[in-house]
Amino acid sequence: MINRLIENIKKTNAPIVAGLDPMMKFVPEYIKQEAFAQHGETLEGAAEAVWQYNKGIVDAICDLVPAVKPQAAMYEQFGVPGMAVFKRTVDYCKEKGLVVIGDIKRGDIGSTSEAYAVGHLGRVTVGSRSYSAFDEDFVTVNPYLGSDGVKPFMKVCEQEKKGIFVLVKTSNPSSGELQDRMVDGKPLYELVGELVAQWSAECMPGSGGYSYVGAVVGATYPEQGKLLRQVMPRSFILVPGYGAQGGKGADLVHFFNEDGLGAIINSSRGIIAAYQQEQYAHFGERGYADAARAAVLAMREDISRALAH
Amino acid sequence: MINRLIENIKKTNAPIVAGLDPMMKFVPEYIKQEAFAQHGETLEGAAEAVWQYNKGIVDAICDLVPAVKPQAAMYEQFGVPGMAVFKRTVDYCKEKGLVVIGDIKRGDIGSTSEAYAVGHLGRVTVGSRSYSAFDEDFVTVNPYLGSDGVKPFMKVCEQEKKGIFVLVKTSNPSSGELQDRMVDGKPLYELVGELVAQWSAECMPGSGGYSYVGAVVGATYPEQGKLLRQVMPRSFILVPGYGAQGGKGADLVHFFNEDGLGAIINSSRGIIAAYQQEQYAHFGERGYADAARAAVLAMREDISRALAH
Repeated sequence: MINRLIENIKKTNAPIVAGLDPMMKFVPEYIKQEAFAQHGETLEGAAEAVWQYNKGIVDAICDLVPAVKPQAAMYEQFGVPGMAVFKRTVDYCKEKGLVVIGDIKRGDIGSTSEAYAVGHLGRVTVGSRSYSAFDEDFVTVNPYLGSDGVKPFMKVCEQEKKGIFVLVKTSNPSSGELQDRMVDGKPLYELVGELVAQWSAECMPGSGGYSYVGAVVGATYPEQGKLLRQVMPRSFILVPGYGAQGGKGADLVHFFNEDGLGAIINSSRGIIAAYQQEQYAHFGERGYADAARAAVLAMREDISRALAH
Repeated sequence: MINRLIENIKKTNAPIVAGLDPMMKFVPEYIKQEAFAQHGETLEGAAEAVWQYNKGIVDAICDLVPAVKPQAAMYEQFGVPGMAVFKRTVDYCKEKGLVVIGDIKRGDIGSTSEAYAVGHLGRVTVGSRSYSAFDEDFVTVNPYLGSDGVKPFMKVCEQEKKGIFVLVKTSNPSSGELQDRMVDGKPLYELVGELVAQWSAECMPGSGGYSYVGAVVGATYPEQGKLLRQVMPRSFILVPGYGAQGGKGADLVHFFNEDGLGAIINSSRGIIAAYQQEQYAHFGERGYADAARAAVLAMREDISRALAH
């Protein structure tokens, strides 16, 4: 799957992942009203609104981006109907040829991580049969429990040719509270980066190149990104925090390797809620999907320009 | 909710939480066969088997334990039907008067943690209405992203009088890879314990006593538990790892405060799959719920004896 991600990036010439984080405040009024007319102001109605909103965006940008990243929390908040739309979104994006990164940030003790890995990337056994429950291509994983929380995901990655991105240095303001603490003269995130580098080396596709095990490093911390790029040479870096959280194209250069690969930059509200920004307001609410397309084109341009320097 | 947990502990005289982690290998054959006869060997069939299995256990032990802890991964692995049974289990346990701890180990950047907090502990807004999506009483939270990943949960706890347990020192063998690393002369788990102590102080019910913010510390690390008990005086400690993972009653004493409160000990397979252990094998597969009851009684005895010394 890491090779499919790389193919898709080369085909689109855009190391961009669109974050499908459908907060209700981003969903245009007319979509909500149609969904509520059908299902009432219920969890089902909210889920239907999210689905219609997602579908519009995916249809508008699927030829421009290699991958999407649905954020599980935004679906889970609407309970079981929300999780059904998470699954429907995953399936639809895959039909459209997109690589799907489930932003689930799971991580637990070994036997429990195994259940998450099986449920999101692998196949779960039921009697004499087996099923893919959510079936994303990649998921994000939290490393706080150490390697026995991560290895069950690696095992499923090797079996199914899928991938993970391990949280190393997250994009949020308080990420430093633990991640920047100094351990033996190095910040904790560097130590986690070294673990990721080990796991990466153990989990390579036959063809070499990049590992099934990648990392999450926030665009908001470019200096740390530069260091971590060196520490984890075979890991793709998923970079959140571009746009709304403050990261800029010029900050991103050092997240890439010299082959022009090795990083994929996420933007969520900057794409999916572009119509709510001044610069794209002329698209109007009904043009939200076209606004998303315009925002992707601008982001591609911004990143290309930065990488050309 | 922390006060309800304390009430329930006093009423049952058992600081015990039963982990509802229904791996398929624990579910008796006859239950699986009935469920598969109805729904086929499908995700729906698996979910139905899990539900029937859970219901039998809950009916057998609900007068003996104050709380249950369903592990989200074990439901999520069966996709949307699995999550529906997670919700059904939460609701059923609450009807039976049990406090429900959702073992979800979520944690993300602020706006995303907010969605998890709302979805699992609070109410999500849909148009002019609001709904409780999963509606557990407590959830477990991963601290790797720092305080802006935890505070949205605290906000919902104060609004809804609910609670969280923050991962501090987990029970698994590799927990030390990050959690034991020395930072300024202290292990990282102690630093996280200090953060929990701060968060605890900010998030107290009006009546004082224990905070809405508790911690997870594994029974498998009794020395660390002793230290952390001092560091976080107002936090309840959720203690996994008793039984199957190797923790014993005598190891648990120092997790409690002098008031005899402050800790609740989890056992999962030791209770729910007791019938698969030699000592309870005479109950047979069809006696799995009675075996679970016997295991709870033995665990209560083991803990009482340890605390009496």
